[in-house]
Amino acid sequence: MRRRKKPGSEEKLLSKDKLVVAEPERYKGTWHTYFQQKGEIHVEIGTGRGQFLTTMAERNPHINYVGIEMKEEVLLQAVIKAEEKKLQNIAFLWLDANRLTEIFEDSELQRMFINFCDPWPKNRWAKRRLTYRGFLEIYKNLLAASGEIHFKTDNAKLFEFSLNEFSHCDFQLKKITFDLHQSDLQENITTEYEDKFVQMGKPIYRCEARKRN
Amino acid sequence: MRRRKKPGSEEKLLSKDKLVVAEPERYKGTWHTYFQQKGEIHVEIGTGRGQFLTTMAERNPHINYVGIEMKEEVLLQAVIKAEEKKLQNIAFLWLDANRLTEIFEDSELQRMFINFCDPWPKNRWAKRRLTYRGFLEIYKNLLAASGEIHFKTDNAKLFEFSLNEFSHCDFQLKKITFDLHQSDLQENITTEYEDKFVQMGKPIYRCEARKRN
Ligand SMILES: C[S@@+](CC[C@H](N)C(=O)[O-])C[C@H]1O[C@@H](n2cnc3c(N)ncnc32)[C@H](O)[C@@H]1O
Ligand SMILES: C[S@@+](CC[C@H](N)C(=O)[O-])C[C@H]1O[C@@H](n2cnc3c(N)ncnc32)[C@H](O)[C@@H]1O
Repeated sequence: MRRRKKPGSEEKLLSKDKLVVAEPERYKGTWHTYFQQKGEIHVEIGTGRGQFLTTMAERNPHINYVGIEMKEEVLLQAVIKAEEKKLQNIAFLWLDANRLTEIFEDSELQRMFINFCDPWPKNRWAKRRLTYRGFLEIYKNLLAASGEIHFKTDNAKLFEFSLNEFSHCDFQLKKITFDLHQSDLQENITTEYEDKFVQMGKPIYRCEARKRN
Repeated sequence: MRRRKKPGSEEKLLSKDKLVVAEPERYKGTWHTYFQQKGEIHVEIGTGRGQFLTTMAERNPHINYVGIEMKEEVLLQAVIKAEEKKLQNIAFLWLDANRLTEIFEDSELQRMFINFCDPWPKNRWAKRRLTYRGFLEIYKNLLAASGEIHFKTDNAKLFEFSLNEFSHCDFQLKKITFDLHQSDLQENITTEYEDKFVQMGKPIYRCEARKRN
């Protein structure tokens, strides 16, 4: 998890203690005490350089955002963006997503975002995909009733896989699109990877998956 | 419905009275009395020239198949195939699918097939698509609990639309594939349209939609 470290980036990251939460387990079930405000908690997994989540936080000041990312160099970029924007409603966790249940209580989250997660193309790697049913069952527990997962990818095979996994785990699928940027979805906030793929002319796949009541 | 008639095809069709059911309303709720055997009833809508349904009937002698088609010239081709194969477990209805509720009782069907239905590409035509929610609600009533709709198309936009409609109508989606002929689905029986599209190198989209209990 701490491989390929740039010298100094770990120390820099840990110094950003207003935005990077140390020992996030402490807040399990009480994330509202961490933020200055009540309001929904939305989590992005694999937040990367943070363009998406910091823009969301800027636009929706009454929602509390948590970005989870395991690579410190990219997370540092996200943190710097949040600092520059002087955001109060965002926190970052330097963490592997497989530790989610240590950090959040059941039903504590209203929404989760998974944007351009690694496709792990070989069949034998399926369990590593962040939309594998093992992960989805965990997300489902962490989501409140009617909570949603919003998912985007450029990878058709991963999208096909993910639709089946969401459905298998009894999520209700909504707003499935095979070409987000040609669709009539309003107000899409792009990620860094998305901008790159769109420039290459690739279609973006997106769906929402709602937890049944 | 009877436009573009080939001279004589209507008469020929009606003469095939072992296979083309006259006044099918008579059998509503009692389709088992029509067939020589009990067993599941599976219906294909827009059966076309019948390659798919007659092959299914041949392979699964204990299932009763009903093919619905509104164009008499194509239906005649399907009927001739069934005659040649001497099938006992198949019936054809020369009928518009919008009359389904006159023909079948609620919960009378175990499975429905929709293969390469007309895409009706313009938005304002959406209600004519055989996977429009208005149709799906009808199919859902006609299906028994856990009954399934198996859907294939070459048209990405229609597939995207259909996934959303199935989900909206609370079907559980299964075995979604964006490229059936490269997938590991066992024993696919092709239709005439499918053979043509595959030869053109087009991928075939497929899914199953299960009625919840
Ligand atoms: C392909 S990048 C996409 C980044 C960003 N979401 C975007 O769209 O620009 C995937 C990111 O997910 C992170 N990631 C992958 N698996 C993770 C895990 N198990 N826990 C936390 N982060 C993970 C990677 O470190 C990487 O930054
Ligand atoms: C594109 S063709 C596909 C035929 C066949 N399923 C195949 O895959 O080769 C669609 C067929 O559905 C029939 N059809 C369309 N709307 C229908 C309706 N409302 N009721 C019955 N048949 C219909 C058309 O007449 C046509 O034969």
